[in-house]
Amino acid sequence: MKQGDSYSVPGFLASASSCGLGKEGEFDLSLIVSQTSAVAAGVFTENRIKAAPVVISQERIKKGFIRAILANSGCANACNGIQGLTDAVKTADRVAECLKIDPSEIVVASTGVIGAYLPVTLIKSAIPGLVDTLSPYGFESVAQALMTTDSFPKISYREGTVHGKPYHLLGLAKGAGMIMPHMATMLSFLLTDIRIDSRTLSRIFFPAVDATFNRITVDGETSTNDMALILANGLAGNGELGKKGLEAFEQDIHDVMAELAYMIVKDGEGASKVVIIEVHGAATKRDAQKAARTVANSVLVKTAIFGKDANWGRIMAALGRAEIEVEEHKVQVWIEGVKIVDSGMMVSAEAEKAAAERMSGKEVTITIHLNQGRWKDRMITCDLTYDYIRINAGYRS
Amino acid sequence: MKQGDSYSVPGFLASASSCGLGKEGEFDLSLIVSQTSAVAAGVFTENRIKAAPVVISQERIKKGFIRAILANSGCANACNGIQGLTDAVKTADRVAECLKIDPSEIVVASTGVIGAYLPVTLIKSAIPGLVDTLSPYGFESVAQALMTTDSFPKISYREGTVHGKPYHLLGLAKGAGMIMPHMATMLSFLLTDIRIDSRTLSRIFFPAVDATFNRITVDGETSTNDMALILANGLAGNGELGKKGLEAFEQDIHDVMAELAYMIVKDGEGASKVVIIEVHGAATKRDAQKAARTVANSVLVKTAIFGKDANWGRIMAALGRAEIEVEEHKVQVWIEGVKIVDSGMMVSAEAEKAAAERMSGKEVTITIHLNQGRWKDRMITCDLTYDYIRINAGYRS
Repeated sequence: MKQGDSYSVPGFLASASSCGLGKEGEFDLSLIVSQTSAVAAGVFTENRIKAAPVVISQERIKKGFIRAILANSGCANACNGIQGLTDAVKTADRVAECLKIDPSEIVVASTGVIGAYLPVTLIKSAIPGLVDTLSPYGFESVAQALMTTDSFPKISYREGTVHGKPYHLLGLAKGAGMIMPHMATMLSFLLTDIRIDSRTLSRIFFPAVDATFNRITVDGETSTNDMALILANGLAGNGELGKKGLEAFEQDIHDVMAELAYMIVKDGEGASKVVIIEVHGAATKRDAQKAARTVANSVLVKTAIFGKDANWGRIMAALGRAEIEVEEHKVQVWIEGVKIVDSGMMVSAEAEKAAAERMSGKEVTITIHLNQGRWKDRMITCDLTYDYIRINAGYRS
Repeated sequence: MKQGDSYSVPGFLASASSCGLGKEGEFDLSLIVSQTSAVAAGVFTENRIKAAPVVISQERIKKGFIRAILANSGCANACNGIQGLTDAVKTADRVAECLKIDPSEIVVASTGVIGAYLPVTLIKSAIPGLVDTLSPYGFESVAQALMTTDSFPKISYREGTVHGKPYHLLGLAKGAGMIMPHMATMLSFLLTDIRIDSRTLSRIFFPAVDATFNRITVDGETSTNDMALILANGLAGNGELGKKGLEAFEQDIHDVMAELAYMIVKDGEGASKVVIIEVHGAATKRDAQKAARTVANSVLVKTAIFGKDANWGRIMAALGRAEIEVEEHKVQVWIEGVKIVDSGMMVSAEAEKAAAERMSGKEVTITIHLNQGRWKDRMITCDLTYDYIRINAGYRS
């Protein structure tokens, strides 16, 4: 539901506070609570170095039910060994005490600097305040509390009905840098009151993550802390979803995550443009994905786009090293709908100029046809700018 | 041989000229000629999109003998279809006419912008002048003519003796950007007067390329035009090299290419520091290579080094996504000899500070021990700076 600028989902409460994790006076700790036990599914980073909150939440979500999410920014709680795990558990335990619920139903999420210990005392002392201020309209402040190098909070919302019963779906995310999810994503929490069983929820959630969060990249880096969670508390009271209801809800989940994924790229560290790489005609599914990902992560392609240069040669070179089936004389490339490469060669200097002129907007679409087969894929990325260097060389993030 | 600042190798002549390929008034075309047919070996880009000169030279070198190399900068002659091939052949044919040698013994090399056609008329009309000015001391100007975004010419030289007979080895290279050779390298020509058979030459050349040019990366990009050639004209008149002679020559080749490789990284686009990534204790040879390469190409690690930040968390995150066997609690990391990570965790804030203080030099070595097995590898790379963005976003290269 929406009240002014505030979104809510029946049965979910949220709050945030500033407990001094590094962002002076800004929200850095947040709590989301489901008033009933919610059916839950989660996807976690495939980085082999996993932060403590990932290890804990991954284990706890296996049961399929979650009551609360405690999230902090400013500290990743990664690479902290056993202490990292016990620290995270202690903060979840404090939430359990205050809410009088089972600690195993609480998941934790962290984002920020790797290798700093979690300030457990600070966090624990902030938890009673978080519990006291829980509100159905606290999600805006949660989105703010998740931000690290993000420049704006990321929220997406949908409403729908199943058999006449209204349901709500709210998505929150944080992104900005170290973005190349691999079967996972940056922090994202989806909350809904739809009634759905755990197995069905997972079955529709995983492919939607793959189609959205796993199709974006800012810098080709996969974080130690990535997680995407969905909680469904069933308060909508709908009956069996059925094929039509399920399809509609599936579309909503996809749309909410696609919106959040787009916002993450748009807010990519230093990004001045969103870049969409569309690959068609790949010989295999894997080739389509590899081609799109290699072009999307090419620093030469990304700097050319920043420079508004329709430098198709760099696109060709990236395709050539993508370890895919590619025949030079079959490749076609369009920039913003202007065909600049045909049969592997430049169409004309005029076409190149026309393409360059269309690169001044906030979004640039590069369409590649390999003409090798029937597979397609796409990645959403951003350009590589001076500001990315400034953000990442300038201070510890 | 060395005369003042000029190197020479008996039996080899060289010249360069400025024929107007884009670098106003600077050398952009060069010719190297062996006075006798030279035994030759070559390694070429593994990019599937190969420039016309790569296709032609790769075929011509198969015979194992080469008389001349014609090289230009300012135009890659890549992605030009059939015309690219015929253009390249026409320029080689003109060299053959002027030198009265067989065109099949001439290889061509190009570097520069992809997709521009070779200015054949300009090049052909410059060739007689190049032939007229051939000199035993023309190699400095060849090194200059090879430069594109390079800021200095790259030359390395060794002398040795086999059974009392002196031999000479001269190496030239160009690099700067789009550097992640893959079983190949940027343009590099090695010239020697040692007497050696074609098969032995290849047997020692290929692994030396792999250990040197294939162990550097500037930006993870593999060019369409990479090639490394070695020509041995036999004028030293040595007898059978024997085990000892072969080992000494092998070492020379390795050293010359290692020096050139280091220079390429040092001159990496916008680089302020050379960064050496040493990986020890990997479970497999492939893991050692993948670990070193992933850390070396991590834009977050590279920007941290530019910012003199001993940000070991980014090194851990890169190792975690390298698709290798890695156990967090076994990882150790040193920066410039200061141990900052042990058992996967920060040693101390003091150690981190001490490491950061050692990062102000022109070279930073990061040593990683995975403690998974006995394999090791290393990569040489550079930091990622504002100037890389300026160079690659600012103009067509």
